[in-house]
Amino acid sequence: MTQLLLHLADFNERRWAEGFAAALPDLRVVTREDAYDPAAIDYIFIWKPAPDAFDGLSNLKAVLSLGAGADALLRHPHLPEGVPIVRFMDEHLAQCMSDYVVSQVTMHQRLELRFRRQQKAREWKQLYPAPAWEANVGVMGLGSLGQEVIGNLKALGFALRGWSRTAKQIDGVETFAGADGFAPFLAGTDILVNLLPLTEETQGILNYETFSKLKQGGLDGWGPVIVNAGRGGHQREADIVRALDDGILKAASLDVFEVEPLPSDSPLWDRDDVFITPHIAAASNEQTGVAYFSKVIRDHLAGKALPNVIDVTRGY
Amino acid sequence: MTQLLLHLADFNERRWAEGFAAALPDLRVVTREDAYDPAAIDYIFIWKPAPDAFDGLSNLKAVLSLGAGADALLRHPHLPEGVPIVRFMDEHLAQCMSDYVVSQVTMHQRLELRFRRQQKAREWKQLYPAPAWEANVGVMGLGSLGQEVIGNLKALGFALRGWSRTAKQIDGVETFAGADGFAPFLAGTDILVNLLPLTEETQGILNYETFSKLKQGGLDGWGPVIVNAGRGGHQREADIVRALDDGILKAASLDVFEVEPLPSDSPLWDRDDVFITPHIAAASNEQTGVAYFSKVIRDHLAGKALPNVIDVTRGY
Repeated sequence: MTQLLLHLADFNERRWAEGFAAALPDLRVVTREDAYDPAAIDYIFIWKPAPDAFDGLSNLKAVLSLGAGADALLRHPHLPEGVPIVRFMDEHLAQCMSDYVVSQVTMHQRLELRFRRQQKAREWKQLYPAPAWEANVGVMGLGSLGQEVIGNLKALGFALRGWSRTAKQIDGVETFAGADGFAPFLAGTDILVNLLPLTEETQGILNYETFSKLKQGGLDGWGPVIVNAGRGGHQREADIVRALDDGILKAASLDVFEVEPLPSDSPLWDRDDVFITPHIAAASNEQTGVAYFSKVIRDHLAGKALPNVIDVTRGY
Repeated sequence: MTQLLLHLADFNERRWAEGFAAALPDLRVVTREDAYDPAAIDYIFIWKPAPDAFDGLSNLKAVLSLGAGADALLRHPHLPEGVPIVRFMDEHLAQCMSDYVVSQVTMHQRLELRFRRQQKAREWKQLYPAPAWEANVGVMGLGSLGQEVIGNLKALGFALRGWSRTAKQIDGVETFAGADGFAPFLAGTDILVNLLPLTEETQGILNYETFSKLKQGGLDGWGPVIVNAGRGGHQREADIVRALDDGILKAASLDVFEVEPLPSDSPLWDRDDVFITPHIAAASNEQTGVAYFSKVIRDHLAGKALPNVIDVTRGY
């Protein structure tokens, strides 16, 4: 009998197990609290695995990861070699990520911070934000999430550009690639959106030097701004503070942080030009997560290829 | 020679006159400071007309109004009878209005106010906003602006409903009409957007009774909220304050006010649950305004019908 082991931190493991058991009646679904033979486990479904998570799992067919990003998992010291890792990606996750990015991008395009400051000062000063087609949104990371976000921003009329490691063509988007394309990409960007995977190459990419290359004076003289929906490891928070203080950044929407939860003594909390959300842009949802991974397992047992397999050398 | 008179308050009349003169070289373009025979004026292009604006203009072919809404103009005591009134409507105006509404709707869907309050308290409390398809946006007013907004919100995946005076069919939108349709429309609405024309019937429609009929408990228990991009005359500000205090409204985005500029002693200014902008959602832009009305005049002189003519008895 095929066996699925659940290993989830920060989630209700029992509820997920019940969901999988109902969706996959022919499998045995176990958690770490159950009695089972590690060598008999075929699939492990994980989130934030403990150091001994993979011990004894000598016959694994696949590692199923509840996150869209696999950076933390890839750093696991005992990640079994040669076993494919499947990451989560579904319509619900993509929609939530896009919802977050669209809300932050449109907020900055409409100069919301300026109007909040005017309101605080009881100041009635008319200023007409330019239409979306004059706001240049630069998206870093052109995978499935980046493309979902781009599709929605395009429908709203924004001027779009994209940057990725390898060259990609996207209809209606000016694309740039690699180290050589980075500066020209930034030079035309008013609103910088990060949706990159976290790898050695992208670690700390949201730094002072990057900010200093962004287009100045856009968004009616207000920009540039950044939106980080990737990972905290992408950003240098000291650089963000310095860039905001220097005026080379006008605002930052941050859903992720170098240390999470964000420490209570972080200088970011008190700033009105930093829009903090507690890593909630998008999460894997129990219902859609069970549906997605049940299908992955059923299809795999029926001989189909695994979807969204991580390239371990590339890092995403 | 055909003559066009410009009569604009709050705008740079001279610059507009130069724009029209360049676009319509066969016409004589005058402002009130020039010497002209009132009886020889064919077209008047107006914004906030003075009481004597129409005096002596006995041979007018059309009144061209620089606003999308004509409520103030229709209250003019000497509006010439039987002369068609053309209102402004173009891509730039529609885009800006949609930009404003989309930014406010997505902000509320993403529970921005909740996260701003958490940030102020340095509180890291994860809460995942539901995807756009679970947020019910109800648009009042299904004219060209309402339909532009609906098109963009639909592209983002929102659940949409619409209400108008007379029944309209819009693909993918649950529509309601007239007095009988109002309560059922409100009962399923989490985010109420007003884009109605201001008429006797719609005056004060954003009142306590209306708010009390909105869907309660939507937006993850957070809603309902309102977004007024119509006119200040649509809203009862005392009712908004009361509804927010009572908790039957959770937030309000207001671009327009009963008295503008909003008086400095208004209780709205100090509220974090009221998002004030100084009537800047969308404005007529000089470049697009000259292009639009030049074409209207050229086409009219060539025998074509006037577009976007206001129905004076209906009021919009």
